[in-house]
Amino acid sequence: MAPETSTLLLHSLYLVAIVAEAMTAALTAGRRDMDWVGVCVIACVTALGGGSIRDVLLGHYPLSWVAHPEYLAMTAGAALLTALCARMLRHLRKVFLLLDALGLVAFTIIGCKVAQQMDLSLPVVIISGVITGCAGGVLRDVLCNDIPLLFRSELYASVSLLTGGLYIALDDYTGTSNLAVPLALVAGLALRLLALRFNWQMPKFVYRGDWH
Amino acid sequence: MAPETSTLLLHSLYLVAIVAEAMTAALTAGRRDMDWVGVCVIACVTALGGGSIRDVLLGHYPLSWVAHPEYLAMTAGAALLTALCARMLRHLRKVFLLLDALGLVAFTIIGCKVAQQMDLSLPVVIISGVITGCAGGVLRDVLCNDIPLLFRSELYASVSLLTGGLYIALDDYTGTSNLAVPLALVAGLALRLLALRFNWQMPKFVYRGDWH
Amino acid sequence: MAPETSTLLLHSLYLVAIVAEAMTAALTAGRRDMDWVGVCVIACVTALGGGSIRDVLLGHYPLSWVAHPEYLAMTAGAALLTALCARMLRHLRKVFLLLDALGLVAFTIIGCKVAQQMDLSLPVVIISGVITGCAGGVLRDVLCNDIPLLFRSELYASVSLLTGGLYIALDDYTGTSNLAVPLALVAGLALRLLALRFNWQMPKFVYRGDWH
Repeated sequence: MAPETSTLLLHSLYLVAIVAEAMTAALTAGRRDMDWVGVCVIACVTALGGGSIRDVLLGHYPLSWVAHPEYLAMTAGAALLTALCARMLRHLRKVFLLLDALGLVAFTIIGCKVAQQMDLSLPVVIISGVITGCAGGVLRDVLCNDIPLLFRSELYASVSLLTGGLYIALDDYTGTSNLAVPLALVAGLALRLLALRFNWQMPKFVYRGDWH
Repeated sequence: MAPETSTLLLHSLYLVAIVAEAMTAALTAGRRDMDWVGVCVIACVTALGGGSIRDVLLGHYPLSWVAHPEYLAMTAGAALLTALCARMLRHLRKVFLLLDALGLVAFTIIGCKVAQQMDLSLPVVIISGVITGCAGGVLRDVLCNDIPLLFRSELYASVSLLTGGLYIALDDYTGTSNLAVPLALVAGLALRLLALRFNWQMPKFVYRGDWH
Repeated sequence: MAPETSTLLLHSLYLVAIVAEAMTAALTAGRRDMDWVGVCVIACVTALGGGSIRDVLLGHYPLSWVAHPEYLAMTAGAALLTALCARMLRHLRKVFLLLDALGLVAFTIIGCKVAQQMDLSLPVVIISGVITGCAGGVLRDVLCNDIPLLFRSELYASVSLLTGGLYIALDDYTGTSNLAVPLALVAGLALRLLALRFNWQMPKFVYRGDWH
């Protein structure tokens, strides 16, 4: 197999994504009046938590931040910078939404690749992508004592699911990640941005029985 | 040792139990207005989360849904079906309570067997059963932002603890799971149903000191 | 290397610390009207959860309570005793704060040592200490449906971070844990008690933008 330039692309996007996730997580922590240590912890957990949960569930050791402690420094640093410059970042809301969408899609494809390299079955490969893409945000919301946004907001997990499925299909069909990665990236990103722009929502299941 | 028919019995009950847990979890998610993806996630986490936490804590890889991805499809499918037919299921409340009790007891015994096969010590075998039986429901409540019901409701964890203890004692005494499994199943199920019927509660610890 | 008396010191402090953490956790559970099983679960999770999360993240098996199930009995027993004698313990508030501080510092150093013995990099050694020291309390607060106190209170995580850093520096400089452990213990304990006494706080990051 030729050296995969898609790996380099994904790695660059990964670095962008963990910084972006750390910054949005810091703003969430700021709405809960957390102190600076709390801000750093929430940022690291949000940015690196999805991958960590995936690795623990699949038994894929060492975890990325254990092998690359510089990721911890990057996320904590980005969080502190965000706390310092929050006023200025207010005008960059759209940039952050874009970076967050990029992070979701990049995390998802990376999660799929990790499971692929472990020779796991197709459904597990896709679930691995969804966990990598979404679990960090769930952890953030649990630690901030919210109902996880994931379960109530627009197409977040669905975008992850579709991106993962598309990546697997393309990778299988073209036989090389060099095509599958950028195509799935662009498609997933487009879907997420369209969902944000037009406020697409999944149907909700509303139940008011006196259960339990 | 003779081929254990109890293994077949437990496996059948396991399949019934994960479907039942997925359905009750879907109804819980519906009371929080989650979208359909959220309903599926809550269902999978509730049905498969207890076993996953046990396997991660004991280092018992691969996890059951990684080895058997069809479990994911079963739980997600059961959850979607529940969301579609919630109105009809309203009248089946007692059936669900029975299936939920069956799940608690079956999960507990399965958890004990996993730890036994890893040659772990007696207290760890019982704790493994309790984690398998109860942790899924705790995860569900944390994700739905409730105080876990487990810690406030009737004899849930206690039934799990007693079922696990009884199973171990019987297994040790009779020397075969073929007797221990059905006996512990019936006894645990009876205890849980009696607790539900007569609203048995553990004494509560109420403390109002100005701690922290 | 000479047999390390510091290991014995740390182990004794560990036993004191898990009992102390179990007792304060039981009081927290009592403020939420949990039943006795809930009190025991919260106590075990608080006292042993930090080390368990560390071990799972680092792939360090078996977990301490799997290898030493007597820790489970100690923490559950301490929790039940606390529930029985809560009225009397009310006057021992200061003793508990001291023991809790001791636990934080001892857990942190133990966590650093575990990662050191796995030959992990310096930042991971310190993070391992912070996770061991703090994650149990975070789990307790999540299960009790609070915003984790850690992220809002006085210098808890910061003390852990500084203690870990100091221990590593001293261990590296003196070449023996026999000096580094007691020195880091005393310094960390002093810092925590001073923070409590003078109500030292980290600066808070307060943000009210309409994010998300």
